[in-house]
Amino acid sequence: MAGWIVGFVDGEGTFSVAIQKNAEMSLGWQVFPEFVVTQGAKSLGALEELKGFFMCGRIYRNHRHDNHTEDIFRYCVRKISDLDEKIVPFFKMNPLKTSKRNDFEKFAEIIEMMKAKKQLTFKGLELIANVIQGMNSRRKSRFLESSETVRQTLYTE
Amino acid sequence: MAGWIVGFVDGEGTFSVAIQKNAEMSLGWQVFPEFVVTQGAKSLGALEELKGFFMCGRIYRNHRHDNHTEDIFRYCVRKISDLDEKIVPFFKMNPLKTSKRNDFEKFAEIIEMMKAKKQLTFKGLELIANVIQGMNSRRKSRFLESSETVRQTLYTE
Repeated sequence: MAGWIVGFVDGEGTFSVAIQKNAEMSLGWQVFPEFVVTQGAKSLGALEELKGFFMCGRIYRNHRHDNHTEDIFRYCVRKISDLDEKIVPFFKMNPLKTSKRNDFEKFAEIIEMMKAKKQLTFKGLELIANVIQGMNSRRKSRFLESSETVRQTLYTE
Repeated sequence: MAGWIVGFVDGEGTFSVAIQKNAEMSLGWQVFPEFVVTQGAKSLGALEELKGFFMCGRIYRNHRHDNHTEDIFRYCVRKISDLDEKIVPFFKMNPLKTSKRNDFEKFAEIIEMMKAKKQLTFKGLELIANVIQGMNSRRKSRFLESSETVRQTLYTE
């Protein structure tokens, strides 16, 4: 089973980390790591196998508004303790074979930093944002681009 | 290794069959089954593992003309004897877990028909075309739509 999981995640998995604005956080930003595997409705069973294997995470349904395409299902693990105790150790024991391994390693590094509460300081948030920049499946960082974090230099007088 | 292969193909593999015009064939049509796994350049190693495992097939490179995206590599097995003796038996022994299993089963059925030389008669070609219609990853059938095979009825006077 472990082999199938590694192969399937090599194909369909994503390890991503976003830094999102959240007024409730003391610094105004929240670090949001997520392990996701996406499938169409016909292959929902494969996501249920993943959920059963890892014994954590949830399956979400993205409804399609047209009737031509099937609904998309996403198996997501977002809880830090699940990522730290279940997902990260599994892929350390059973390494990915594609370039997703690079994303996973950066992801694991960020989970480690979050365990050490680095995201609670501005310096720590910057460190995490820089690790995210090295990920393949990175989303544009609102944090690094925000006026609070970017030192702007004058382009023309 | 078998587990990883099944998972990776569940994620990234396609089993497809095309019927293409080919003037050199006695009926003018050629049945073209293909097992393909596609990856970006960074994960070429994973395709090399597949090729080494199955001991058949080739890796093709699709060059990108812009400089922003990486080249795409395709591991392809097209030879009927390789499909029949290596690919099909492997996935019969190690079943896929996603809806690609349906495509694989139809694919295996067509390989079986081709071993029995069904594609050399017009009736056999029609049978094969009908099996293709039941595949998820089907390409539009030029054969079924061609004037040679479609009985046209008059829509208006």
